[in-house]
Amino acid sequence: MTDDRETGLTLDPKYDFAGLVTAVATDGDSGAVLMVAHMNAEALAATLDTGEAWFWSRSRGRLWKKGETSGHVLKVREVRVDCDQDAVWLIVDPHGPACHTGEASCFYRRIEGRRLVRVG
Amino acid sequence: MTDDRETGLTLDPKYDFAGLVTAVATDGDSGAVLMVAHMNAEALAATLDTGEAWFWSRSRGRLWKKGETSGHVLKVREVRVDCDQDAVWLIVDPHGPACHTGEASCFYRRIEGRRLVRVG
Repeated sequence: MTDDRETGLTLDPKYDFAGLVTAVATDGDSGAVLMVAHMNAEALAATLDTGEAWFWSRSRGRLWKKGETSGHVLKVREVRVDCDQDAVWLIVDPHGPACHTGEASCFYRRIEGRRLVRVG
Repeated sequence: MTDDRETGLTLDPKYDFAGLVTAVATDGDSGAVLMVAHMNAEALAATLDTGEAWFWSRSRGRLWKKGETSGHVLKVREVRVDCDQDAVWLIVDPHGPACHTGEASCFYRRIEGRRLVRVG
């Protein structure tokens, strides 16, 4: 007996207790991880319907379109789902910096030893 | 007043209520997202100390080294942390398939319309 969620072709996201899946956005050209956020069912549907990335803000408790204020939207090329369907991978074309700090990616520091070093 | 967690060079992970941060592993060569999992402080320390990826299994409630049974370890080239330090990005060299299903990546299906399509 196979697990249809893992092996099948039915979209059946495994939302957590808060109704969320993890969403990872990578740059379609460079492959860099741009940001990690969360989606509820509404955010995933909005993303699939509009071709731009929508998330659920846990801190603000509301749906938001990435770039709704800054204009730095993420145009979605492709959305993938992982084996147990509790995470999605968005392959995107970012329009502007993905990070609210102004960095291209939220991951602008690497860990060396137990310290951080700015990248690039 | 800047937020040191966001702009500083001190490693200060923002663990959630369960003591976890999100971890994303990408292939150092292809850039593909291989898997998304979680780390507690012990898993992060073990990863930094050993150069192989360790995670916290929420379903099994224990620390585990990726590949401890299969041998399909993830050799870590670099670890980055995101702006608010609640997610880490592991750039890795996978030794074997990263997914327990035998696929190279856990993200072996893309969403088309509301259905899944196997990739590649």
